[in-house]
Amino acid sequence: MRTIGMQNIQIMPTGGHPVVYSEWLGAPGAPTVLFYGHYDVQPVDPLNLWTSPPFEMNIRDGKMFARGTADDKGQVFCLLRAIEACDSPPVNFRFLIEGEEEFGSKVLFDLLKREPERVDADAVLVADMSYVAPGWPSVYTALRGIYYAEITVRTAKTDLHSGEYGGAAPNAHEALVRTLARLKKKNGRIRIPGLYEAVKLPGKAERAAWKKLPFSEKDFLKKRIGGKALTGLEKYTVLERLWALPTFEIHGIMGGFTGQGAKTVIPAEATAKVSLRLVPDQKVKTVGKQLAAAVQRAAPAYADATVRFVHGADPAQVDVSRPVFALLGQAFREVVGRGTVPVRAGGSIPVVPALGQRGAPVVLTGVGLPDDRLHAPDEKLDLQQLWDGIDVFKRFFQLLAENTEDVKKERRTKASHRDV
Amino acid sequence: MRTIGMQNIQIMPTGGHPVVYSEWLGAPGAPTVLFYGHYDVQPVDPLNLWTSPPFEMNIRDGKMFARGTADDKGQVFCLLRAIEACDSPPVNFRFLIEGEEEFGSKVLFDLLKREPERVDADAVLVADMSYVAPGWPSVYTALRGIYYAEITVRTAKTDLHSGEYGGAAPNAHEALVRTLARLKKKNGRIRIPGLYEAVKLPGKAERAAWKKLPFSEKDFLKKRIGGKALTGLEKYTVLERLWALPTFEIHGIMGGFTGQGAKTVIPAEATAKVSLRLVPDQKVKTVGKQLAAAVQRAAPAYADATVRFVHGADPAQVDVSRPVFALLGQAFREVVGRGTVPVRAGGSIPVVPALGQRGAPVVLTGVGLPDDRLHAPDEKLDLQQLWDGIDVFKRFFQLLAENTEDVKKERRTKASHRDV
Repeated sequence: MRTIGMQNIQIMPTGGHPVVYSEWLGAPGAPTVLFYGHYDVQPVDPLNLWTSPPFEMNIRDGKMFARGTADDKGQVFCLLRAIEACDSPPVNFRFLIEGEEEFGSKVLFDLLKREPERVDADAVLVADMSYVAPGWPSVYTALRGIYYAEITVRTAKTDLHSGEYGGAAPNAHEALVRTLARLKKKNGRIRIPGLYEAVKLPGKAERAAWKKLPFSEKDFLKKRIGGKALTGLEKYTVLERLWALPTFEIHGIMGGFTGQGAKTVIPAEATAKVSLRLVPDQKVKTVGKQLAAAVQRAAPAYADATVRFVHGADPAQVDVSRPVFALLGQAFREVVGRGTVPVRAGGSIPVVPALGQRGAPVVLTGVGLPDDRLHAPDEKLDLQQLWDGIDVFKRFFQLLAENTEDVKKERRTKASHRDV
Repeated sequence: MRTIGMQNIQIMPTGGHPVVYSEWLGAPGAPTVLFYGHYDVQPVDPLNLWTSPPFEMNIRDGKMFARGTADDKGQVFCLLRAIEACDSPPVNFRFLIEGEEEFGSKVLFDLLKREPERVDADAVLVADMSYVAPGWPSVYTALRGIYYAEITVRTAKTDLHSGEYGGAAPNAHEALVRTLARLKKKNGRIRIPGLYEAVKLPGKAERAAWKKLPFSEKDFLKKRIGGKALTGLEKYTVLERLWALPTFEIHGIMGGFTGQGAKTVIPAEATAKVSLRLVPDQKVKTVGKQLAAAVQRAAPAYADATVRFVHGADPAQVDVSRPVFALLGQAFREVVGRGTVPVRAGGSIPVVPALGQRGAPVVLTGVGLPDDRLHAPDEKLDLQQLWDGIDVFKRFFQLLAENTEDVKKERRTKASHRDV
């Protein structure tokens, strides 16, 4: 940020990881663009599956491999380079780069409550996303929310020896396994009473548009997943399952004995890390209550079951009819030969609604590709995507400046309510 | 061993942990007793549940707390002290102390195949067991066997991000949880086809004798387990479930994300450590095939499931009508006021059948108590049990010498076949 001339650069202490802020307001009268991104990344394990060390940049076949290249440091870098590429930037900029996106953004929420002027802008650009397919730049009309929790069952005061107790003592892992198996039907339907009530399915037009996207369910299974079969509710297309339906996933199970060797322990306690992805109009608060009730119902009578909330984010929706979206589409069309298509995201960016709290449209886009392996070993960002992104954003800034009146009018009109 | 005058002490290298052998043959004409024990112990985790460090002896309330005090180093120590307590030992001794009891005794099996004379004795004493209740010394008529394995399911080539893939990609933990849940009915019946076919239930007399033992199912649940309810097949008593029925236990589940934080990974692979305890006349080999077939049947079609054998031991039975058992009973009666009661063990000592391969009766007994917390945090051995045990075994040696003819005749009669 210093190198490219950003001003008022602040590393703001918070209760957790600091938030990085900076601004450049050298284009008076022109629109102001707020960039949101994050410098925190997902854990790198399993480390042994990385081809090169996750925190050393390694370039192979025109791709940058390292944790955070696509999610999200590489994309923040793209924005910085786009500004640097302007002889004299035609618009004003603010940056808000946080360190807790991957676990709920609490400190940024707190900051924006105390200092809402940090998001004072005519457009918010969140470049944390990807093209929906190679050659198909995208803007996102919805993000799924998330409810992340730990389900713990306890069956005894201490771990027991299966030789002495096996056959009569309750086993916490067995209790957990039964509980988890009961929380989803074989056909993929989540068995949490009430969960689907608030789900607002996409309309006919949106679903029809998704069918035209260059998305092959077969390639998704064979090339990207490398599995034997897809799962989930069969009456919905894969994109509908990924973008418009809630999920329930088990991420890991703790307790008992998982070391080398053959310990014959009957575990007294077992914990599953789980999460639900949420879709419009589900709410974190409601889903939390629904999950807690479902776990109580699903757990065997011999076990004490509890649910500990870890973090959450409501789903978000974006009205992409506002003028800045057309300008971004034009920039992409000029640079990469195709405008943006409106799609949805299966992932979550918790703070998105708060970024739009002063009325600015929040533009969710990015230069990633679907095979970037976010959160997994060998995360990467294609260099050509990065170079294209720099040109696209540079052109977007020019277009915003050329349409200052439209862009600013839009903000005034919408300033009284949140649009995401 | 050196201190008390044992001779020919050998630390025998093996492919794995060495076997310790020694002998004292200074009572020509008198019976020879072979002691079997083990110096290996179970892993100590979870370490934070230990009141004092597991590898530092800590004496509290007349109890020795440390890993291995009851299982089995404290009991080997008891035998050494019993020999030391004899002015001039009236019988001959051999020791075979191994370091792989807790995971299958493979190296000792190999040794006894190459050098069967190592078990040349008139009686084998395995002091690795406990009283069935305080004040109730016991000999064991059967040990359960064990089949320890890892069940692995694989659903994708790499871990995936639940934001990008959640709703359509298969989740290895979900596949594993479903597989495991299907392997046991809610009522405790193991759903492995054919598993119960070889089970030989105890006869009426044995079951009636067990009902007279000072065993309270309520205390077992409340004091020893500290749980809400017992599990297992309700039509059998708890002792029948512990001693005469096979089990299926989950010990731990690996894979996915189990660290600090909230990684939203869809695991590509998940592994459960599991074991079955086996009862007469089940066989490791048959059970292995039955489990493999059951796992294939139980695993969802979208997962590749495999079973990796870790170690196993067939169940063992002991004929306690042979003369040495009466002599041991007399020793206990004289020292602690009650003779031995015949019971069974839920645990496994893989090498027991091989110890009797030259025809010597194998006496399974010990000075532990049911609440010794074998394999768990705060394992302990009561000092009074240790002191009593020294006196009991010293007296047992005298009785063996006084009944040399009976003891030796017995060995000659039975030398042509294995009795366990």
